[in-house]
Amino acid sequence: MTRDTLNVDVVIVGAGPAGLMAGTWMAQTGVTAIIIDQKPHRTQSGHADGIESRTFEILDSFGVGDNVWKNANPTIDLSIWNHQKSGGIKRGDLLNNCNPGLSRFQEATLGQGQIEQNFLDFIDSFESVSVKWNTCPTNLTIFESSEYPVQLMIQTRNSGMKEHINSTIRAKYLVGCDGAHSWVRDTLGLSLEGDRMNEHWGVFDSIPLTDFPDIRKRCIIKANAGHLMIIPREKRLVRCYVQLLPEVAAALKVKLDPETLVNIVREILSPFSFEASSLEWASIYSVAQKLCPRFSKYNRVFLAGDAIHTHSPKAGQGMNVSIQDTYNLGWKLASVIKGKARPMILRTYQEERLLIAMRLLAFDKRMVEGICGKESDSSMKGLTSISDSLRNTLQEENTSSSGLTARYGPSCLVTPACESERRRLAGPLLPHSRAELAGNMAIGVRFNNAQVLLQCDSKPYNLQQVLRSTGEWRLLVFGGDISNSAQMKRVQQLGLKLVEEGSIFCKTDPNSADRVGEIEAFLIHCAPRKDVEFMKLPEVFRPFDETMGYDYWRVFADNDPYGEGRGNAHRLYGIGTEGCVVLVRPDQHVAFIGALEDLSAIELFLLNIMTGL
Amino acid sequence: MTRDTLNVDVVIVGAGPAGLMAGTWMAQTGVTAIIIDQKPHRTQSGHADGIESRTFEILDSFGVGDNVWKNANPTIDLSIWNHQKSGGIKRGDLLNNCNPGLSRFQEATLGQGQIEQNFLDFIDSFESVSVKWNTCPTNLTIFESSEYPVQLMIQTRNSGMKEHINSTIRAKYLVGCDGAHSWVRDTLGLSLEGDRMNEHWGVFDSIPLTDFPDIRKRCIIKANAGHLMIIPREKRLVRCYVQLLPEVAAALKVKLDPETLVNIVREILSPFSFEASSLEWASIYSVAQKLCPRFSKYNRVFLAGDAIHTHSPKAGQGMNVSIQDTYNLGWKLASVIKGKARPMILRTYQEERLLIAMRLLAFDKRMVEGICGKESDSSMKGLTSISDSLRNTLQEENTSSSGLTARYGPSCLVTPACESERRRLAGPLLPHSRAELAGNMAIGVRFNNAQVLLQCDSKPYNLQQVLRSTGEWRLLVFGGDISNSAQMKRVQQLGLKLVEEGSIFCKTDPNSADRVGEIEAFLIHCAPRKDVEFMKLPEVFRPFDETMGYDYWRVFADNDPYGEGRGNAHRLYGIGTEGCVVLVRPDQHVAFIGALEDLSAIELFLLNIMTGL
Repeated sequence: MTRDTLNVDVVIVGAGPAGLMAGTWMAQTGVTAIIIDQKPHRTQSGHADGIESRTFEILDSFGVGDNVWKNANPTIDLSIWNHQKSGGIKRGDLLNNCNPGLSRFQEATLGQGQIEQNFLDFIDSFESVSVKWNTCPTNLTIFESSEYPVQLMIQTRNSGMKEHINSTIRAKYLVGCDGAHSWVRDTLGLSLEGDRMNEHWGVFDSIPLTDFPDIRKRCIIKANAGHLMIIPREKRLVRCYVQLLPEVAAALKVKLDPETLVNIVREILSPFSFEASSLEWASIYSVAQKLCPRFSKYNRVFLAGDAIHTHSPKAGQGMNVSIQDTYNLGWKLASVIKGKARPMILRTYQEERLLIAMRLLAFDKRMVEGICGKESDSSMKGLTSISDSLRNTLQEENTSSSGLTARYGPSCLVTPACESERRRLAGPLLPHSRAELAGNMAIGVRFNNAQVLLQCDSKPYNLQQVLRSTGEWRLLVFGGDISNSAQMKRVQQLGLKLVEEGSIFCKTDPNSADRVGEIEAFLIHCAPRKDVEFMKLPEVFRPFDETMGYDYWRVFADNDPYGEGRGNAHRLYGIGTEGCVVLVRPDQHVAFIGALEDLSAIELFLLNIMTGL
Repeated sequence: MTRDTLNVDVVIVGAGPAGLMAGTWMAQTGVTAIIIDQKPHRTQSGHADGIESRTFEILDSFGVGDNVWKNANPTIDLSIWNHQKSGGIKRGDLLNNCNPGLSRFQEATLGQGQIEQNFLDFIDSFESVSVKWNTCPTNLTIFESSEYPVQLMIQTRNSGMKEHINSTIRAKYLVGCDGAHSWVRDTLGLSLEGDRMNEHWGVFDSIPLTDFPDIRKRCIIKANAGHLMIIPREKRLVRCYVQLLPEVAAALKVKLDPETLVNIVREILSPFSFEASSLEWASIYSVAQKLCPRFSKYNRVFLAGDAIHTHSPKAGQGMNVSIQDTYNLGWKLASVIKGKARPMILRTYQEERLLIAMRLLAFDKRMVEGICGKESDSSMKGLTSISDSLRNTLQEENTSSSGLTARYGPSCLVTPACESERRRLAGPLLPHSRAELAGNMAIGVRFNNAQVLLQCDSKPYNLQQVLRSTGEWRLLVFGGDISNSAQMKRVQQLGLKLVEEGSIFCKTDPNSADRVGEIEAFLIHCAPRKDVEFMKLPEVFRPFDETMGYDYWRVFADNDPYGEGRGNAHRLYGIGTEGCVVLVRPDQHVAFIGALEDLSAIELFLLNIMTGL
């Protein structure tokens, strides 16, 4: 070892959204990490800008969602315009751009640089993670028998100096988030596979001066002069994506003249006027739908984001899927590094995310075809102005594609939904869920939000907010109607079992500062809250600390805020008055659903993946 | 003039909530001000902690509400406990502590020091206002003929040094927010008048270790051993107010022993256990309900907060009424200093706030009597556990007392509600409102919030959020159903009148950085938003700027977010499909309600108070 060698748990290559999300997990869980990036600083303008509801939920789970949400511009309307025979363009459909109720957030736009800044601010508030700009990797070697098997040589350009500084990072794991031209991927001998479509687009951000009336709505415009997508942004910015003829694209590749793009937009929007004021970013690109079929090697090096999937920016998914990749990976890495989980759980990263990436590419293909395909003339009455296919595709954008309803299949981290699903799985016969106990909750899907009230003071509470991203698992006990004494007895018995000597839950420490791999229990009941006495509830739901008193923030009443009747959470999840238990992973995905008596199944499931219990 | 003389527009004595609110207005409007305080720094612990909904609205109007709201603890339940004949205490009523719908915020608690810090952070982000700690006033002289008539001698203690530094501040106005023992008030020869009740209380903040089940609810407990009020706070803190016997109070005045207070609380809560962990503040006080009948002198020096009214902390109103005092005064001072309004408007400060202070004292008296008076034994069936009088008082706490429904009477800043009310007023015959056009809106009361949608992109918007505290007046044009062509014509004509040469609205500059005294116009219509074309609306509601494009943020559709029908704003305000215009003061209070054709009445009203138009 020389002076120039640094040992860390994780080295992350690339400080874009995927790399910073990985770094955020490491910071939050106290894992040491270094993020390197060849750029001198974060993204300054342009690039990605769409933020899906699921991404907001993820940001919120680290406490960095507020600021992003406050500055972002929600896109609520989607306006479709078509050419008309008589010339010019005409508004066809005006659709909702989101499905209310699927999330407490909705799709919004904010420049990638600002998202990155939020991650950087978060990371900066912890000591375990640092970012090294102006730095690129030069050599990667894996020594499996070492404590730090990953050896990455790096080169840092010093600002103002011509020479480079070479040094070495030794790490337990490497995460390659270095984009479509990933050095890490290439070095592993992997590559992106797939098609480059013959589609060329230009994009620019500006403050538009226009009398086009829908300029603050998301628009898809299909004019004879070409296709245009309008994405209203934060402040007064608007992004225009405009389709280019191959020869125009070729010329712009030689010399990017934003005015050419502005002129095409003006032509498409005609007879409406259009000028671009404060033009702050412009670029051109060709649509390539490509996938790297392997996301990891040696169970030591993992790829994420554009390094494993590239596609068009049509649906604003890029930044989201990339963030969601490392959101899936980060807690698993932390759990293994902290000795809380077996390394085999890392294999679920590819199992879970490859399917998502494949679906994304198929979805993107339909999206590109829907937007670029010719539609019927909107001036012809009796015909819808967009195809059913595009309409369905747009609908999908707001559900599975955005991550809201994305389902991770059965694995060591997600129980099968029923006995027959379990039989189809290879490996040891682990427990299956009793999915029917929460009929509207899907195993493997992220836990949807419902509003409940804190039992202690009736404060409204988003249940998703107890699922903060700390590396902890949560056992959500839906107690049902505990004003019924038989039901209350079941909850009491469950409470006793949880604190029994030798119980897996008992081995966790509610007051430990290191939360990775711990299990927190919460109770949500649907009895009228005035009929429930806090002090008569099982102690596991109200742990006592000698200096901090009781923990009053683990019991919730599923009641109306100002009434006394039942609230909506049990109904939303399809849970009856007999209740159920739901085990939620550290990334908010549902791992198991069972009856109040099914604790042993949960133990079996957790013992299979956890170490040190 | 010596080197030690500083000229500012406003000198503020006292950096508590009232003084900092005044300083916040000055910072926001670009008026130069200095705030002096004899303390070495802001409040560190204890003191006031109740924040009413109206105060949140005010903080939010400066953009500092989010942070306070996020950290505060909403008090939703109010639990009443009484002694029972068989010994111990028993829960009587469990009431709602707020009226949902009256505000988008609700009552919450947060330590005074944190509120002050939010104000200080805001002020710190501007250059025109500074805070000078360790500084007290020593002499006050008024020279009416000078440009800076107020001469205040001050003395600053340098930290670490024994000697004092004397200097002089010359200002146009002085605001005395220096508390119950106000030096400014005494120097003006004014005094607090009223009674000291024979009520003595102790108060402390701690993390309670207790099995008392309602510890996280606001409680009023009437035990044989004494009376106790419990106020749950941010984090795990809880405040206890406990009634003291005169002899106990006298002893504690000599030497404040918090353990004595804790013991009394333990006795009152018996048979429940009680220990105070992390006791962070304790104090004792006697209830004194006093009022200074004059709030200003020479129309140059103004008093606010505890300097003019003291009362019990029972209803958590102190900090709120103090903040609301200077919220009322600040924009008036800024308007006069900037030459936008005649100095006579300053006289409305006392007219408007004296009545509020008198009501507060009467309310506080009922509150103290209700809480300290004996109630019937709650174990006797058929009797309510609290008196109707206390119940009514608690109800009032959430409406007029909190500022939500406080009404400022007719004056040069509030039009009379009808012709007969106008006749009763002295002075020139200025216009009166047509209150019936907005049947549920009260003239002189703060403009209540309703949610509408931005016309341009359907984004949900709290109408109150357009009423930011910038010193601007707002003309809210409720256009009614403009899908009706006759109604649209009325709105068009109003739009033309607003931009007519010589119109009072035309004399204001939408792009001027200095917003004090400007008038902003907004349109809220209740036609289905898809039937309304933005570009066909009057230009005054969509001003165009050559580099920033159209202003899309002045037109709102009163629609359901995901439907197309009418929303709730027109209904909430009692406005029909024929619409009306509402003129709102810079402090969000309604000044005038009229028909779409009543512009000349508004002009007459404004010309009477404004200068330079």
